[in-house]
Amino acid sequence: MIIVLKPHSTPEQINHIVRHIEEMGLKAHLSQGELRTIIGVIGDEDKLRADPLAAIPGVEQVLPILKPYKLASREFHAQDTVVKVGKVSIGGGSLAMIAGPCAVESYEVLDEIAGKVRAAGANILRGGAFKPRTSPYSFQGLGEKGLKILREVGDKHGMPVLTEVMDPRQVELVERYTDMFQIGARNMQNFDLLKEVGQMRKPVLLKRGMSATVKDLLMSAEYILAEGNRDVVLCERGVRSFEDSTRNMLDLSAVPNVKGQSHLPIIVDPSHATGRPDLIPAMARAAVAASADGVHIEVHSCPPKALSDGAQALLPNQYQAVMDDIRRLAAVMGKTIS
Amino acid sequence: MIIVLKPHSTPEQINHIVRHIEEMGLKAHLSQGELRTIIGVIGDEDKLRADPLAAIPGVEQVLPILKPYKLASREFHAQDTVVKVGKVSIGGGSLAMIAGPCAVESYEVLDEIAGKVRAAGANILRGGAFKPRTSPYSFQGLGEKGLKILREVGDKHGMPVLTEVMDPRQVELVERYTDMFQIGARNMQNFDLLKEVGQMRKPVLLKRGMSATVKDLLMSAEYILAEGNRDVVLCERGVRSFEDSTRNMLDLSAVPNVKGQSHLPIIVDPSHATGRPDLIPAMARAAVAASADGVHIEVHSCPPKALSDGAQALLPNQYQAVMDDIRRLAAVMGKTIS
Amino acid sequence: MIIVLKPHSTPEQINHIVRHIEEMGLKAHLSQGELRTIIGVIGDEDKLRADPLAAIPGVEQVLPILKPYKLASREFHAQDTVVKVGKVSIGGGSLAMIAGPCAVESYEVLDEIAGKVRAAGANILRGGAFKPRTSPYSFQGLGEKGLKILREVGDKHGMPVLTEVMDPRQVELVERYTDMFQIGARNMQNFDLLKEVGQMRKPVLLKRGMSATVKDLLMSAEYILAEGNRDVVLCERGVRSFEDSTRNMLDLSAVPNVKGQSHLPIIVDPSHATGRPDLIPAMARAAVAASADGVHIEVHSCPPKALSDGAQALLPNQYQAVMDDIRRLAAVMGKTIS
Amino acid sequence: MIIVLKPHSTPEQINHIVRHIEEMGLKAHLSQGELRTIIGVIGDEDKLRADPLAAIPGVEQVLPILKPYKLASREFHAQDTVVKVGKVSIGGGSLAMIAGPCAVESYEVLDEIAGKVRAAGANILRGGAFKPRTSPYSFQGLGEKGLKILREVGDKHGMPVLTEVMDPRQVELVERYTDMFQIGARNMQNFDLLKEVGQMRKPVLLKRGMSATVKDLLMSAEYILAEGNRDVVLCERGVRSFEDSTRNMLDLSAVPNVKGQSHLPIIVDPSHATGRPDLIPAMARAAVAASADGVHIEVHSCPPKALSDGAQALLPNQYQAVMDDIRRLAAVMGKTIS
Repeated sequence: MIIVLKPHSTPEQINHIVRHIEEMGLKAHLSQGELRTIIGVIGDEDKLRADPLAAIPGVEQVLPILKPYKLASREFHAQDTVVKVGKVSIGGGSLAMIAGPCAVESYEVLDEIAGKVRAAGANILRGGAFKPRTSPYSFQGLGEKGLKILREVGDKHGMPVLTEVMDPRQVELVERYTDMFQIGARNMQNFDLLKEVGQMRKPVLLKRGMSATVKDLLMSAEYILAEGNRDVVLCERGVRSFEDSTRNMLDLSAVPNVKGQSHLPIIVDPSHATGRPDLIPAMARAAVAASADGVHIEVHSCPPKALSDGAQALLPNQYQAVMDDIRRLAAVMGKTIS
Repeated sequence: MIIVLKPHSTPEQINHIVRHIEEMGLKAHLSQGELRTIIGVIGDEDKLRADPLAAIPGVEQVLPILKPYKLASREFHAQDTVVKVGKVSIGGGSLAMIAGPCAVESYEVLDEIAGKVRAAGANILRGGAFKPRTSPYSFQGLGEKGLKILREVGDKHGMPVLTEVMDPRQVELVERYTDMFQIGARNMQNFDLLKEVGQMRKPVLLKRGMSATVKDLLMSAEYILAEGNRDVVLCERGVRSFEDSTRNMLDLSAVPNVKGQSHLPIIVDPSHATGRPDLIPAMARAAVAASADGVHIEVHSCPPKALSDGAQALLPNQYQAVMDDIRRLAAVMGKTIS
Repeated sequence: MIIVLKPHSTPEQINHIVRHIEEMGLKAHLSQGELRTIIGVIGDEDKLRADPLAAIPGVEQVLPILKPYKLASREFHAQDTVVKVGKVSIGGGSLAMIAGPCAVESYEVLDEIAGKVRAAGANILRGGAFKPRTSPYSFQGLGEKGLKILREVGDKHGMPVLTEVMDPRQVELVERYTDMFQIGARNMQNFDLLKEVGQMRKPVLLKRGMSATVKDLLMSAEYILAEGNRDVVLCERGVRSFEDSTRNMLDLSAVPNVKGQSHLPIIVDPSHATGRPDLIPAMARAAVAASADGVHIEVHSCPPKALSDGAQALLPNQYQAVMDDIRRLAAVMGKTIS
Repeated sequence: MIIVLKPHSTPEQINHIVRHIEEMGLKAHLSQGELRTIIGVIGDEDKLRADPLAAIPGVEQVLPILKPYKLASREFHAQDTVVKVGKVSIGGGSLAMIAGPCAVESYEVLDEIAGKVRAAGANILRGGAFKPRTSPYSFQGLGEKGLKILREVGDKHGMPVLTEVMDPRQVELVERYTDMFQIGARNMQNFDLLKEVGQMRKPVLLKRGMSATVKDLLMSAEYILAEGNRDVVLCERGVRSFEDSTRNMLDLSAVPNVKGQSHLPIIVDPSHATGRPDLIPAMARAAVAASADGVHIEVHSCPPKALSDGAQALLPNQYQAVMDDIRRLAAVMGKTIS
């Protein structure tokens, strides 16, 4: 940690800060320049983190150097983590192709969609039973009934299943039916929920919050990892921006950005990122070319009748075309789809 | 709702859409222009909301007209709502002056701070017992012990108390000790938590999410109101932006913006919005001049020793100076501090 | 154009608006619902655009329907435009591979870089002679001397050249030396400059402004097209966001977004978008997979000695590796590099 | 400047960087910690600024300490600058009340508006003769004819006048008619234009760009100051954000933020910031309470007939009401309106 003092800070102020650092068992290195004094703090930076040094008189800036996450960092774990969801691998060259409707609506509809996305090459089935809807008057999901349908349809088609959990009280229930938990963008900093899924032994797909930085995303992953669950897959799904012609702004640079700092796999969700079926295929291709470990796409056999987010879903034949493109790009990138 | 069709949409497409609307018991009004056909939908718009009309072939844009919230709207309730927290009124000309430390650390520290902010004119005491921290390694709050201290100190100084609740499982516990629930920015769209406090009979301070629009904020208020709890106070606390010299960007225009659309009171938190004690006084004054119903400020008697967010806290004498300014501006604005 | 009236608007207000529309030679179609009246305006919408209907009493919202640009739109020109820069084609399946240093520094340095990027497969040489620098104390470019060097080095290596113009008074000077004008992000809405290059007969690379929407970008292209210059290539180069670990946020969805609405080619600049050499290769690959018509990358033979933006430049051998990847992806996408 | 090296940087890398610094006549101070080495650079930081240290192998981060502007800084000039526009003072306790229509349309309309805003208490008259319009098909202003009308009307009502200049070739023309130049948000980083008005001897109102940080704004002011013109007034006018119910997001914290770092006056433009007449009065009041040195408001006697931006203009009687509020708040704040 670097502490930059204000110009004309007094020797008393400097001594006060140095004593403060030394009282915590750390060492302070002074650099006195013509205009300013700078103090480098050597030792376990975490001891200082909780301590609001910026509030001490005479301090102008406090610059942390070490990254605030550990278990999620590449320094801690140099090799790419490969997460197994059922028999499907995510990371280390294996791509997750997650597809399905926004919400589970009925056995028949889900069965039809699952059959088609499986045939197109999807390897994980998604479907929401608990839906975070902006309006209390919108369809909120089928609850446990939806979980049962998802499980049955996944088993029928030989696909592991993924579903969102929103409430710490539902974690055990959802755990009984799902192969992977999804933490949605709105809950990326619902820390009690993160701790709860961190205590489970099933993998977690953690979506980036709507205004979360890459560092924030890794800090939220750290919450799950710190509870003992090491099977975390990150998901870039677009962030809020001023651009009003797309639902969110897909930040594809988050893929190489995360991979440089962390060993965790990261996939991309172009459906929620763009909200526009006409943009999803190009963004799915771009995700694979950017080295993402998978692509998450909403597919519905009849989008105009979907009970949730139908406008952004691809039709099964559109999904088939995207998968054809992805397979050819994956080959160039040296990736496989299990 | 207005449905704008693509140029050259076919009569079959138009008929399909019209039938779809009429099947829902609504009326469709066609306007055929030189370039485009437009369909106005008359009736209960909610029936259509869940229905992704934009996914129907031939549709270019769907433009909602009615606001998606009802109970929060001024159309529903024309008079300003006044929320009572203990004996303190918020709204309708009465200002809430909420002050206290970020986190409850000990009886002694809180007692000292409470005495000073009370003397300066604060009328509600705040303090966190459960803290949403970006890092799992940061101080997470004292839990129930903190709640007890807060209650005792509030009672001693004759101030109602406000504290954050983060987990639906904690709502009943927190309810036993607090006079008002706080829903933090990170939980503004934690819908299960909103429903839970909606079933309580104590008022709720709902903070705007870091990238929530004013409409999103009102929709989240609607979740609480829809469960039967009508005592909701909104709080503008800054949103994420590209400006990197402040912690967030305070959107003061949200104050008159909310007041035009909703009857609910709205207060301003310049502490979290700016993260900088040098900017808090000016933003507190501006909030009152913008007709906010109160100001929420973090105060700590020794910011460098605070266990959480010390760098943004005002000292008690700085808070005193802010309150002196606020009183003079409140007089000009015709507002009172109970 | 759709005009939505406030609830309880009076017949007088409605008549006033209808008369206003008819006075302009347009037709007004009324739809009276249970809660609101809506007026559809039929005819040449441009007549109304300058007219601030939203200011008329009783009006709640004015919703434009037709797009505000014409010459840039696909409705006006259905086929993809192919822009020729010297012998290099951009668009219609041909990729522009633009490379070179941020600024022209000397003949020797530029010559060395040009030789290497040409060998790697670049087909257009870039280099700045007039530099828009945030600080007046930073290196501002070599001016005409830089233009001469750029021309000589481009000719030696058989590459057309691209350089930025910042001031309408420099357009003629720059035109004598360059094969393509660049309008930088900071000048995307410098309308006098747009008009000036619109009167030239050399192609223009128009970069997206730091907070410009896709629509804003197309409107700025319209300024150039409207002056008679039809050879406009757009460039996505990232926008401002809250993410602080990258210089800007690359909005790759702008590529298919533009292509759906406009016939103009669009390329991607991952150098300015990310500001980080570790992220540029992945974003260059993603650009090609997203169907961009080219990639613009800064390359310098010794980034630490570069006089401008060295930290974001690739080394020639890094550029070579990117080009190898791009060639393989271009083959899959059915694109060629001339 | 602080240079943070990557973990495991080699002694050769460290020596290379130290030599590089010393070759520039600066001193390097090493701090070697358990995990990392940090180098503090002492001396004239500007020598290093143009030098992309971040590109040197082994460097992880470069942290500048000194601010990049000088003439605009409070360190350089401790006292508040007071700018005189005709007889009107801006800064040092004197408020500029700038009002008028978006565009000069005719002598009659401007004369009527000027008479009314003068009577309400405005002290500077604004009106555009050259208009930066997003669309090339919108009204572009009356040009020199507009400047003449503005001068005549200003003189008739005893008000100095302010008008926008967009093109460096127009600066001399505009200088003949105006008392103060306005540089619009879109031109905040049109550096050639900034240099040109920097050579004039009339004050400049510099508006914040749509995605400019406070530091960017001060750097643009530095361009003008560095050319010799010391009479610069800054203007906060809202920035781009995700909030779609207002035209921009007014960042009022920029007022105290600028005042802490710079001696230059700063005013607020709630008209362009919000684009909504219902929000302008509250934001004008808030600006004065936040210690702004003035308020800039668009006023039109018949907004529905205005040729530009009518929807956001206040009516003269609405402006009168705002001025009444401002006068009462200014008295509390110890400010005067000359």
